[in-house]
Amino acid sequence: MANTVTQKDIDASCSQPEPCTKDFIMQQTMIRIKDPRKSLDFYTRVLGMRLLRHFDFPSMKFSLFFMGYCKEEDMPKDEKERTRWTFQQPATVELTYNYGTDVDDSFQGYHNGNKDPRGFGHLGISVPDVEVACKRFEELGVNFIKKPSDGKMKNIAFISDPDGYWIEILSPNDMGKLLN
Amino acid sequence: MANTVTQKDIDASCSQPEPCTKDFIMQQTMIRIKDPRKSLDFYTRVLGMRLLRHFDFPSMKFSLFFMGYCKEEDMPKDEKERTRWTFQQPATVELTYNYGTDVDDSFQGYHNGNKDPRGFGHLGISVPDVEVACKRFEELGVNFIKKPSDGKMKNIAFISDPDGYWIEILSPNDMGKLLN
Repeated sequence: MANTVTQKDIDASCSQPEPCTKDFIMQQTMIRIKDPRKSLDFYTRVLGMRLLRHFDFPSMKFSLFFMGYCKEEDMPKDEKERTRWTFQQPATVELTYNYGTDVDDSFQGYHNGNKDPRGFGHLGISVPDVEVACKRFEELGVNFIKKPSDGKMKNIAFISDPDGYWIEILSPNDMGKLLN
Repeated sequence: MANTVTQKDIDASCSQPEPCTKDFIMQQTMIRIKDPRKSLDFYTRVLGMRLLRHFDFPSMKFSLFFMGYCKEEDMPKDEKERTRWTFQQPATVELTYNYGTDVDDSFQGYHNGNKDPRGFGHLGISVPDVEVACKRFEELGVNFIKKPSDGKMKNIAFISDPDGYWIEILSPNDMGKLLN
């Protein structure tokens, strides 16, 4: 298949944002998880995020865990205020736990989107140094889909989270060299 | 199924971030798209994002489009510098176009993760006022999965993008009232 999309198509397809959208925030990416214990450990200990806020919905049998990068001192102590603050944070990862999947032996696990039927691909974490970050991930026993030295694209890695979702590890400086 | 995850489990599963992760950024969420023309139009004109940077990989037959919220004056004019800057921006949406899907009548479309096999759920955009934002989306002919007045959770809406991915529309103030 050839690339049928020209620069002219791209230019013609992009609009200037309307003023009424100026305070819109790309706030969350939701993925379903089997076991919060494993995911909370991975997203905090391995990736360095914090649990911003956690909500239970017993009548609908699920819980949500909002993960993100922030300083501890920026997190409001008051729970009500922290809820509002959580939904003002850009770039959170919303982990959805449907009750019981963690103890259900017949549960097949979630689909990471990278084999048929494909769709969602990955989350991507920008780090100061991919080699350093990946050395630490190896020491922590993290599963690698692609090590930095594998494949055509050096200095990019893919690891996977406890549910098998792919997480790209990249650095702005390396991407600047690789993609220009 | 019952909730088997206690507050004690949650506390025990969360670690303080290690200092070496302090500059990590949740940078991207990658989803595959059928036709960049439709997606670029939707993410810029409807959602108010900008195309931060676009990369072609002819040998691997795909293109990437990084979308995000930013001010035009913050975008570096120099292309090399803009590449580095793009990968420093949190909360971008990376749209992957595999050559030819836009003109392939046999292409079945991508999987949005919300029917079996499930996994990824949605992106979420925080807006100042859900009613106002959704009134505009209706006027623009956007497809709704859930209008703000539908279902149990008032003041939350779900729309879908040209590939059928779900996008939650929420506001920090409403979530503060709803979830406390």
